[in-house]
Parts: sequence; C-alpha cells; structure tokens
Amino acid sequence: MAETQSTQAQRKAANEIFIGKKPLMTYVTATLVQLANEPTVTIKARGLSIARAIDVAQIIVKRMNSLGYKISDVRLGSEQMQSQNGKVRNVSTIEIDISRK
Amino acid sequence: MAETQSTQAQRKAANEIFIGKKPLMTYVTATLVQLANEPTVTIKARGLSIARAIDVAQIIVKRMNSLGYKISDVRLGSEQMQSQNGKVRNVSTIEIDISRK
Repeated sequence: MAETQSTQAQRKAANEIFIGKKPLMTYVTATLVQLANEPTVTIKARGLSIARAIDVAQIIVKRMNSLGYKISDVRLGSEQMQSQNGKVRNVSTIEIDISRK
Repeated sequence: MAETQSTQAQRKAANEIFIGKKPLMTYVTATLVQLANEPTVTIKARGLSIARAIDVAQIIVKRMNSLGYKISDVRLGSEQMQSQNGKVRNVSTIEIDISRK
C-alpha cells in the first residue's frame, strides 16, 4: 500500500495536477508553476471535481491570455471506484493537457 | 428576445443535447435517438452539469460498446452568465461530439 502511494506520488510529481477541494486559485498557481518547468501539464479530475478542473484550465487559458498557454488535448474516461457501502460505481474522469502555444 | 430564443431552439433541434437536471438515462436515450438520424451529436453542458455530460458520453461509448460510437471531439469553453443578484460570472462549458466509429 505504501509502495503504491509512493509510486502515485512520483507519477504526480512529474507534470500532473489532481483537482480536489482546495480553493481554485491553489490549482491555477500549482499548474502555472509546473508549466514553468514542463512543456505540458495535465490537469486531472473525477466526478464533480471535473467542473472545477475546467474552471482551472479556462482561467489559465483565457484570463491569463498574455501567458500564451493553450488546451492541447482533452481526454474523457471512467474509473471503477468502491464506495463506502462496498458497491462498485463508475466515476467519470477528465484529463486536460495545457501546453505553450 | 423571442427571436433569439427561436434561433436557439432551431439550433438545438438539429443535433445538440443540452444536459440539465433530468435523470441521466433520459439524456442517454435522447442522444441515441439523435444518433440514429445524425452522423454526429453534440452533448453540451455548463457548470456542475459538466460531470453529468461526461457520464452520458461514457455510458454511450463504454456500456453500449456494441453500438459502435466514439467520442470524436471534446471542446472546453466558458460563458458569461448573469447570476440572480446581477453579478456577471464566468461559467465553464463542455461540448462532447459523439459519432459512429
């Protein structure tokens, strides 16, 4: 279990931002910091956080237009998750690639 | 104003499904009916309905795999909306194109 987590941390460390419940601008800043070092950063989210992921992407691309970033790819998918009562549910996911124009 | 609405209704009539708060399978069925007549159907949503739009797309593409539909394009955007207290807010939008494989 600890091993899986460290693998996930490593993968996340590269160029992925996983959207959760922190304030929106936290993720905008985190993405911009990553973009300073990486050519492409992937914003990932699932379930209801998907709307927030798109908000983050839009703020970077539109409001910070002068920075010259664009959405280079959007991938939709779904994951099987076990909910608290033990049922397996499908949860939709999104991956948004942001890169320099 | 009435003219704008009728134009929107006409545009929607073609091959667009706008996701709202009805049960998920309502939109799945509506999309499948449209796909019987049109080569491409666009699923549209904004704000928190975006997660539901992706759910609809995933159900059509994955669970009904035998039907042979795929996600051919995903577009993200944002719209300015006036909220009830008169403030103008940006709302994220998604458009998902579903077409035959």
